[in-house]
Amino acid sequence: MNPLFAARTREARRSVLRELLKLTEQPDIISFAGGLPDPDTFPREFLAKVAADEILNNHHKSLQYTTTEGKRPLREPIIAWLAEDGLHYTLDQLIITSASQQGLDLVAKTFIDPGDAVFVGLPTYLGAIQAFRAFQAHLVGIPLHDDGMDLDVLAVAIARARREGHPPKLIYVVPDFQNPSGITWSEEKRRGLLEIARRADLVVVEDMPYRKLRFAGEPVPPVAALDEEGRVVVLFTFSKLLAAGLRLGALAGARDIVEKVVIMKQATDLCTSSLTQRIAIRFLQEYDVKGHIRNLCHHYRVKRDAMIDALNRYMPNEEGISWTTPEGGLFLWVRLPEEVNTERMLERALRHKVAYVIGAPFFVDGRGQNTMRLSFSSATVDQIEEGIRRLSKVVKEELASLRSPQRV
Amino acid sequence: MNPLFAARTREARRSVLRELLKLTEQPDIISFAGGLPDPDTFPREFLAKVAADEILNNHHKSLQYTTTEGKRPLREPIIAWLAEDGLHYTLDQLIITSASQQGLDLVAKTFIDPGDAVFVGLPTYLGAIQAFRAFQAHLVGIPLHDDGMDLDVLAVAIARARREGHPPKLIYVVPDFQNPSGITWSEEKRRGLLEIARRADLVVVEDMPYRKLRFAGEPVPPVAALDEEGRVVVLFTFSKLLAAGLRLGALAGARDIVEKVVIMKQATDLCTSSLTQRIAIRFLQEYDVKGHIRNLCHHYRVKRDAMIDALNRYMPNEEGISWTTPEGGLFLWVRLPEEVNTERMLERALRHKVAYVIGAPFFVDGRGQNTMRLSFSSATVDQIEEGIRRLSKVVKEELASLRSPQRV
Repeated sequence: MNPLFAARTREARRSVLRELLKLTEQPDIISFAGGLPDPDTFPREFLAKVAADEILNNHHKSLQYTTTEGKRPLREPIIAWLAEDGLHYTLDQLIITSASQQGLDLVAKTFIDPGDAVFVGLPTYLGAIQAFRAFQAHLVGIPLHDDGMDLDVLAVAIARARREGHPPKLIYVVPDFQNPSGITWSEEKRRGLLEIARRADLVVVEDMPYRKLRFAGEPVPPVAALDEEGRVVVLFTFSKLLAAGLRLGALAGARDIVEKVVIMKQATDLCTSSLTQRIAIRFLQEYDVKGHIRNLCHHYRVKRDAMIDALNRYMPNEEGISWTTPEGGLFLWVRLPEEVNTERMLERALRHKVAYVIGAPFFVDGRGQNTMRLSFSSATVDQIEEGIRRLSKVVKEELASLRSPQRV
Repeated sequence: MNPLFAARTREARRSVLRELLKLTEQPDIISFAGGLPDPDTFPREFLAKVAADEILNNHHKSLQYTTTEGKRPLREPIIAWLAEDGLHYTLDQLIITSASQQGLDLVAKTFIDPGDAVFVGLPTYLGAIQAFRAFQAHLVGIPLHDDGMDLDVLAVAIARARREGHPPKLIYVVPDFQNPSGITWSEEKRRGLLEIARRADLVVVEDMPYRKLRFAGEPVPPVAALDEEGRVVVLFTFSKLLAAGLRLGALAGARDIVEKVVIMKQATDLCTSSLTQRIAIRFLQEYDVKGHIRNLCHHYRVKRDAMIDALNRYMPNEEGISWTTPEGGLFLWVRLPEEVNTERMLERALRHKVAYVIGAPFFVDGRGQNTMRLSFSSATVDQIEEGIRRLSKVVKEELASLRSPQRV
């Protein structure tokens, strides 16, 4: 290893998940592993037309450098869009990011000194773990219940981190249809979170990649909409609404925070692609965005229903096996009996030509070995039916093998 | 200020340059300030066609997430391209970056702990200063002569940094037509640099945004081509060759370094835009790239010649006033008598409707007040003639005002 590496780099390892994902990429495998939006939902005829038009007739704006904050005709409609959800920002409170992973990177860069405490769900989004770890955050996992984080545990954990020399800085949450669990926080929990953040003087990072993809139940206000103190930084992305390959998102929050984030972004990549920004501007100006999102919601709803149906039909009906029923987003979460290790079971699953994402990497406390994430976004309804049938067989076989006498 | 900001953030300030650049953006000002490539050089008809085709007919690849390392059909031709210059990399030694500013960010992230020493030219590229400062590097400026860095000073500075508790890590250089100075290093200096890096066990970061834009003189081998130890990390960008707004570049180097950089990039933005990558792939596969670069070189050569001619014609012919004659790139560098402060003089320049970039921000030692950068990339030949005429008048007036009796 190069002796000149920074401390953060010496500690960094390739994610296990990445390596496992490669295994699932064989063509005959029905994969619920990737968390990718369905590319057939991208409005490609429209995008092709405006991309060509922007390049040909607006090249001074579409092919040249642009400002670090991002193009104003993109920031304005995003602000208007967020306002529909009760979030009110002025122009200097929102910047364009190269999708929300960069939002996470910039938040970490802006707030985290080595050893600072960041509180995350058990489980939480893997990309957030990586972004915060890269700045040597001290990550503290807080159990996630069906209605959100365990706030009592959170309050105790904050006090403890402070006592142990890990200055508490951020609480990271994905309150709507979380990746990986599919869980949505109740309004009560959201208010409780803000109260804890207020008392402990922390910043809340509210990541909302799926919020617009609600296909069941009633919307709950974003945490940021309940915030009266400018304590919440919001991360938004076009990855699931327009096209992931454009790498476009936004970060919004209090003016003093956003001002610093802009400085950090300038040092990070100068600006986000002008071309992809111009394409998104045209999408927001000319496309039937509301209709498009309605279609997306319907599309994912049908797939979620197919997956829940198949799980009900095929999965062994026994204690210790359960799954979430998300009201939006792309994922659901399966919990298996404690003795199952989904990483060990994956080999059996691949033999049966079905794949999932193991749950453990989403847990910063090293647990979750008996969990898995299933994405219903990419497979067809028929593949979902067949894939869950296979997966259920895998679970039955695994349980049988674990419980067979020769194992005891 | 938010009390939760990281140490790096508390120190961060908006760049003076950014604010000054805004002043120069009035339509009647002839500006030599922006370092932007001329957007009329971008092959927009071709780009419009392939962008539309990629979105319409290849949306699974152009609109979806892609790998952190970047698309293989883009990495391979870049490797072949670098090989023409004597740089030999395998596929696992090169990754796509969101242009070279991200390359700088990733290098800093990979190598820099707070207080580590990074050695840069006096002057050096501002974006590099910002990228390294964001990771709290200890920046040490080394005088830049007409043929490259003062290597004697460099050797002494490395020893001194080590003695003073600043572990030396990186030497950052732009050896071809540097931004801002336009200077090109001699081969002797390049070899000397490697020898110093070897003795002190440092990594050299060779930034080559302009290398393909040589329009005069003979090419000198890249530092990396002379390197036998894997000590050089190379940063490459499409910003000046294809279109800055695509935000595409590459980083190449030793395998162990690139492997860590990939992990850092995954935490930073997951991947660079699939769409812009696919557009660049088509450009490299189908366009007459060599002819395009020949045209670019001719285009910039004509403008450089116009600027040098005008400087020779209009600038006061006195000791203390000099400029570089770059053999490529977009910039030249003007040195004025010590008593001139180009930041103070800018107001007079704006009154005369001409603009430049002040030199001081490119100096990490706080000097360079009597210098300025002139970009010949965006103005027309006529504007260059007229702009330099105005600028020369500004200089004459400024010198007269500084030397007038009432000032003494």
